[in-house]
Amino acid sequence: MADELVRVDRTGDVTTVTMTSPRQRNALSVDMMRALRDALAEAGSTDTLAVVLAAEGPVFSAGHSFRDMVGATSEDVTELFELCTSLMDTVQAMPQPVIARVHALATAAGCQLVATCDLAVAAETAGFALPGGRGGLFCHTPLVAVARNVGRKRALEMALSGDVVDAGTALEWGLVNAVVPEDELDEAVAALVARVTRGSAAQRAAGKRLFYAQVGRDQSEAYAMAIAAMADGAVGVDGQEGMTAFLEKRHPRFTSTPQG
Amino acid sequence: MADELVRVDRTGDVTTVTMTSPRQRNALSVDMMRALRDALAEAGSTDTLAVVLAAEGPVFSAGHSFRDMVGATSEDVTELFELCTSLMDTVQAMPQPVIARVHALATAAGCQLVATCDLAVAAETAGFALPGGRGGLFCHTPLVAVARNVGRKRALEMALSGDVVDAGTALEWGLVNAVVPEDELDEAVAALVARVTRGSAAQRAAGKRLFYAQVGRDQSEAYAMAIAAMADGAVGVDGQEGMTAFLEKRHPRFTSTPQG
Amino acid sequence: MADELVRVDRTGDVTTVTMTSPRQRNALSVDMMRALRDALAEAGSTDTLAVVLAAEGPVFSAGHSFRDMVGATSEDVTELFELCTSLMDTVQAMPQPVIARVHALATAAGCQLVATCDLAVAAETAGFALPGGRGGLFCHTPLVAVARNVGRKRALEMALSGDVVDAGTALEWGLVNAVVPEDELDEAVAALVARVTRGSAAQRAAGKRLFYAQVGRDQSEAYAMAIAAMADGAVGVDGQEGMTAFLEKRHPRFTSTPQG
Repeated sequence: MADELVRVDRTGDVTTVTMTSPRQRNALSVDMMRALRDALAEAGSTDTLAVVLAAEGPVFSAGHSFRDMVGATSEDVTELFELCTSLMDTVQAMPQPVIARVHALATAAGCQLVATCDLAVAAETAGFALPGGRGGLFCHTPLVAVARNVGRKRALEMALSGDVVDAGTALEWGLVNAVVPEDELDEAVAALVARVTRGSAAQRAAGKRLFYAQVGRDQSEAYAMAIAAMADGAVGVDGQEGMTAFLEKRHPRFTSTPQG
Repeated sequence: MADELVRVDRTGDVTTVTMTSPRQRNALSVDMMRALRDALAEAGSTDTLAVVLAAEGPVFSAGHSFRDMVGATSEDVTELFELCTSLMDTVQAMPQPVIARVHALATAAGCQLVATCDLAVAAETAGFALPGGRGGLFCHTPLVAVARNVGRKRALEMALSGDVVDAGTALEWGLVNAVVPEDELDEAVAALVARVTRGSAAQRAAGKRLFYAQVGRDQSEAYAMAIAAMADGAVGVDGQEGMTAFLEKRHPRFTSTPQG
Repeated sequence: MADELVRVDRTGDVTTVTMTSPRQRNALSVDMMRALRDALAEAGSTDTLAVVLAAEGPVFSAGHSFRDMVGATSEDVTELFELCTSLMDTVQAMPQPVIARVHALATAAGCQLVATCDLAVAAETAGFALPGGRGGLFCHTPLVAVARNVGRKRALEMALSGDVVDAGTALEWGLVNAVVPEDELDEAVAALVARVTRGSAAQRAAGKRLFYAQVGRDQSEAYAMAIAAMADGAVGVDGQEGMTAFLEKRHPRFTSTPQG
């Protein structure tokens, strides 16, 4: 049941989606991936201004469930990893900033989830690993996300060794945005949420969408896309309101939602 | 008038292009962008060996002028951002190294300008921000440049929060090459200029051109382009002189200009 | 003779390929590149689990031999750089992790070799430079590899200045994975080798192959490739053994070689 695996809390403008399967180390079973994807997509369709992805228990997420793969056919596992990729795509397709709240170990597809979020705050007790390289199944798909966050040699060290990278190292490498003592984690997440929920929700949504569309492309193509987005934004209601308010030395009033 | 917005000084082999509109916080108005682009293109066509991009006043550059966009049509703003992109392209198309000298806050397209320069030296008093994310107009085009300098999560934190990143953090993230106390800024810029103006000017120009051509491409395409450039360089006058001088244990004499 | 330029030692599961031309500063002459490429390709075809690339003498490698290029034709030098690129491609095409053991200065194509290896451990006495920018022949091809390891401004600083980057800075920038005192270098290399030779050799090989195939591509293409690799891996002998052993709480027995 989806409601046993994932809990959704909305407080003010912020929605927190929490994995609540601590005994299974928040494994990304088929049910968990569906529940998580649906909860995120649902939160993304509301007027919430930011989404926090959190987890309960001693592990943030241990990645895929081996039980789903032992004895499975190639079609079964292909479907599993397509579902996983659609979960990752959902995170980046949501119009709100998605912030990972990482209190503990995130491994394999759990680590991929952190790498996929727009932003991440970790407790000093967090750790990050792509353990497949020292097992029987290399972390191919998690490495797609991790290699788009950290440099090549660091990504390969994680994937080939399978060893845990501590929170401080993850911060140096750019895998997370901040690291704090565990008892300050909620406060740090709230502070980051507050910093990324000011201004026009529709423009932030457009900005996030364009970022993922342009970041892997040739610079001149990226600029062509960004020029079009700037022109749309500049003549839009929030763009005009923001600039007019600035020139009139008053506070702007933005009325958009993340959906437009 | 272009000569009021931008000052060009040539001292020896170095040309400094300075934004001189401190009361407008060196805003990238249409006139400023044209003046800057033309001054840079002009400097680029001379035999100067390096170009320093500097600014006067309490702000390095505050980015676009809102006055150009309030009440503007979609065509107007598209033209504005195309002009801005052509300014950025000019910086990277110049045959000389272009070094940003950042003494103060660089925001939005001002930050983009720093990210676009080949190299950058900042004073401890400098700061970097993409403030659109907390206003009404997201910094879509500046983020194209910033995301090609720093990791994804750092780029998104800047763009979604709009907050100022201090000089030390910009150094850690790779957005600038060096940070020094404000009263040592000129000295530090001169030292970096001296380090990047030795050897063959034509080969450095070829190197810069090829770098931007290959860096976003597939590795095998990049190598195909680089092999052709190495072959041209190796059989060229400066390539042969450099290698012959090395083998003859004498100082090389390079005669090329940045244009060839 | 190849056996004078390169020495191959196999100890247990690890093959060390050492450049043994200290008087020529391990220059990548045509003969050295052929010897190195052939030794690496040969090691790659065995059941060895990791390959260490090392060097003897006061310099790790000084890059190309100017003697090969003075008076050469464009065809000659094109062939030279094609050979060099095929050496680099060999390193990344080998099924085993290739770890550079950098005890001293690595310049130009010598630095490219370090950037090209999957992993690198440096002594504090090591240094890294792309000196062509202050000579007569820009380091176009080495910059292809270096720019895929470090950020743009850092790569351009190296290439335009030609100055040596010390080991500590190389570590901060992600060009190497670890830096240790010179007398601890062998121990540190052995420790990293031990960490990347656990688990299924065939899956690590598949992981390395897929990493280089996907890392420069659009994220959605990368995921399509990675999903196929995960499905293959999951239903494969080592994937099934690893997961079954985990669920049965026993040690897995992997029987694959790096070749499959």
